[in-house]
Amino acid sequence: MIKLMDKWRITNRLLNHSSKLIFDRRLSANSHNSVFRSALEYSESLVKRGFGNASTIRYRCFGSEATKFERNAAFSTLNSEDVSYFKELLGEKSVIQDEDVLLAANEDWMRKYRGSSKLLLQPRTTNEVSQILKYCNSRLLAVVPQGGNTGLVGGSVPVFDEVIINMGSMNNIITFDKGSGVLVCEAGCILENLVSFLDDHGFIMPLDLGAKGSCQIGGNVSTNAGGLRLVRYGSLHGNVLGLEAVLANGDVIDMLGTLRKDNTGYDLKHLFIGSEGSLGIVTKVSIHTPPKLSSVNLAFLACRDYFSCQKLLREAKRKLGEILSAFEFLDNQSMDLVLTYLEGVRNPFSSSMHNFYVLIETTGSEESYDREKLEAFLLSSMEGGLISDGVIAQDINQASSFWRIREVPNFNSIYYPCVQDYLNL
Amino acid sequence: MIKLMDKWRITNRLLNHSSKLIFDRRLSANSHNSVFRSALEYSESLVKRGFGNASTIRYRCFGSEATKFERNAAFSTLNSEDVSYFKELLGEKSVIQDEDVLLAANEDWMRKYRGSSKLLLQPRTTNEVSQILKYCNSRLLAVVPQGGNTGLVGGSVPVFDEVIINMGSMNNIITFDKGSGVLVCEAGCILENLVSFLDDHGFIMPLDLGAKGSCQIGGNVSTNAGGLRLVRYGSLHGNVLGLEAVLANGDVIDMLGTLRKDNTGYDLKHLFIGSEGSLGIVTKVSIHTPPKLSSVNLAFLACRDYFSCQKLLREAKRKLGEILSAFEFLDNQSMDLVLTYLEGVRNPFSSSMHNFYVLIETTGSEESYDREKLEAFLLSSMEGGLISDGVIAQDINQASSFWRIREVPNFNSIYYPCVQDYLNL
Repeated sequence: MIKLMDKWRITNRLLNHSSKLIFDRRLSANSHNSVFRSALEYSESLVKRGFGNASTIRYRCFGSEATKFERNAAFSTLNSEDVSYFKELLGEKSVIQDEDVLLAANEDWMRKYRGSSKLLLQPRTTNEVSQILKYCNSRLLAVVPQGGNTGLVGGSVPVFDEVIINMGSMNNIITFDKGSGVLVCEAGCILENLVSFLDDHGFIMPLDLGAKGSCQIGGNVSTNAGGLRLVRYGSLHGNVLGLEAVLANGDVIDMLGTLRKDNTGYDLKHLFIGSEGSLGIVTKVSIHTPPKLSSVNLAFLACRDYFSCQKLLREAKRKLGEILSAFEFLDNQSMDLVLTYLEGVRNPFSSSMHNFYVLIETTGSEESYDREKLEAFLLSSMEGGLISDGVIAQDINQASSFWRIREVPNFNSIYYPCVQDYLNL
Repeated sequence: MIKLMDKWRITNRLLNHSSKLIFDRRLSANSHNSVFRSALEYSESLVKRGFGNASTIRYRCFGSEATKFERNAAFSTLNSEDVSYFKELLGEKSVIQDEDVLLAANEDWMRKYRGSSKLLLQPRTTNEVSQILKYCNSRLLAVVPQGGNTGLVGGSVPVFDEVIINMGSMNNIITFDKGSGVLVCEAGCILENLVSFLDDHGFIMPLDLGAKGSCQIGGNVSTNAGGLRLVRYGSLHGNVLGLEAVLANGDVIDMLGTLRKDNTGYDLKHLFIGSEGSLGIVTKVSIHTPPKLSSVNLAFLACRDYFSCQKLLREAKRKLGEILSAFEFLDNQSMDLVLTYLEGVRNPFSSSMHNFYVLIETTGSEESYDREKLEAFLLSSMEGGLISDGVIAQDINQASSFWRIREVPNFNSIYYPCVQDYLNL
């Protein structure tokens, strides 16, 4: 374990070392012109769409305000010697120059950002990640870490010709303690695979999101992904117990604790949660997982106006209390888009379109009690005028189809940042 | 709001600046000889007291291993000009030189550590804290921040003649948002006062501990206090949404966000959580508070051996699931001490002493359901041999008397660090 004075030195070192290679690029990635345009347009459209005092909603733009950016000339360009070095280090198969693979890896999920990397590396161990970064640091080669590449703000793709370090081959589960529910795994584990693994042991991941079939836990941690269970289990700052990360110069920091009640400082792992790889690459994760509870109920509701949705959240927190596990929101424009463009999705309501929709999920340990409670809540919300219509999923298939409406991620990212701020889960 | 590049600069600055004044002292405070002796003796006694393979329990000693330490000669000594400056800045009443007050402030709750400070300051605003630190930094006067002075490891008292900065006068509640449950308050607010305030609004603090009548939220944050509700609501890293802090040079860092789903990095506030004032003094806190649920049940149980306690925790997490709100533990030696030295405390069991005791609290929204569930859990635990006896509190008075047995803090600190690590809530 790292001692206090060492921690202090490491903190200094990591903040000095890091991001010399990566930082400039990261700032630029978030400042893409089109993103700013979307946010402004959205703000205006809020008013048109009946959000009332929406014009007073404050939204924040992160990142540099520069609208044009150029490749930093201080970085080197990849040459054949570099490629040879990586082949010797990782083996031929883990050094990818195939154009089709690179085409996909250079582009984000939304196809909004495109880089021109000529090389993708697939390390299998922390040591390999360390060696790669040490070499790139000494050669001044820019790098970009990449998990499932499901991010929506261009953080996982190169801006110019950075070397892509793909974490997908580091996908082993290291330990799982059934007693404490603590899972330790490599950063490249796909979220859905972890969900399946835990399911066999009677546990769940404390986060869940639409991209679970592709996104990786290392990327989740690096972007501090919130997801659908935040209202119940809180953010990753509360659930991640430990991390192992490799700094830009190749140094490995072992912060892979497994104790939930560890209250010692400085708790450096929190700097890596949400720092999007700019301080180092997360290679291992230790996370607290809650026991799986048997009874899950899902309701799809319609609201007349936005403020009813807000009030509904307050009421749900109070009246469903300990069994509330998700509260998600979408508006009629999003619903319209989903129904138009997504195959096999049906409107849960037979009547005409409503203004807003809310999904409420409860999770508890007794089916009949939970169901009764949810039904009573819906009844009182209907009587109180908070909801205009509502339906409870009758089986797992119907529940999946409800979730599908909300999980389609491109609607989340473009339309909801301000609204999510405002709802303040 | 702080922009990304600014955050990076601030992180560097704060880690460079900080602790020049405070760090040496802090390391020393934790390395008091008697603490080490206690830990070693305890480890040996574990084996004698039937913990089975207790000899393999790993315990960690934090802090420097130096056993002797001297005052750093680089620090100045307080003079009358300093006192005059502070009187002008804060007013006569907030500059304390009274010997009786200083005697109490120089000593920790356990009377294990004693300093010799000649001055206690009581700032009322962030600006006053800033001015004090700026002055002390320029004059090279060592300082120690002090909250409720309820800590058990000597972190809140001077080692030598540091100026004590007592935060008790910064005790205002700034805002409370009933919709989101977000409380923003000054660091000197006493935990119990916050509990009472929230109670009126139907909310609770996500942490609770025996010292609540004296400890302050700023101290809770700085020491990353765990407390009795951690099993349900997790650590302060998950619940604290924002902080304001003053660095050693007087700079104020405003990280006082109120958005629960804020996933942006670098989230610098986490460095202050658990850093015990060594990076700066926390002046304001923003914290997420859960709604108060009406039904609380408490059971006091007896277990034959330690491993039954561990198994009971696993079972409680699974079978009480969403209503489990506390799981606390004590052994027969502690019980013996409590019964001997604490007035008015009775053994909840009429029979002879048991080896171990466990308190289980449930919190939910429906009395009859929760009670039924707890009773069923106790019955199955009794049948399975996990518990040898058990009693459910019949009213709030009995519940308080049960809690009193566990909350007496001197037993926690000396006897339980290893065991808490081992139980791994």
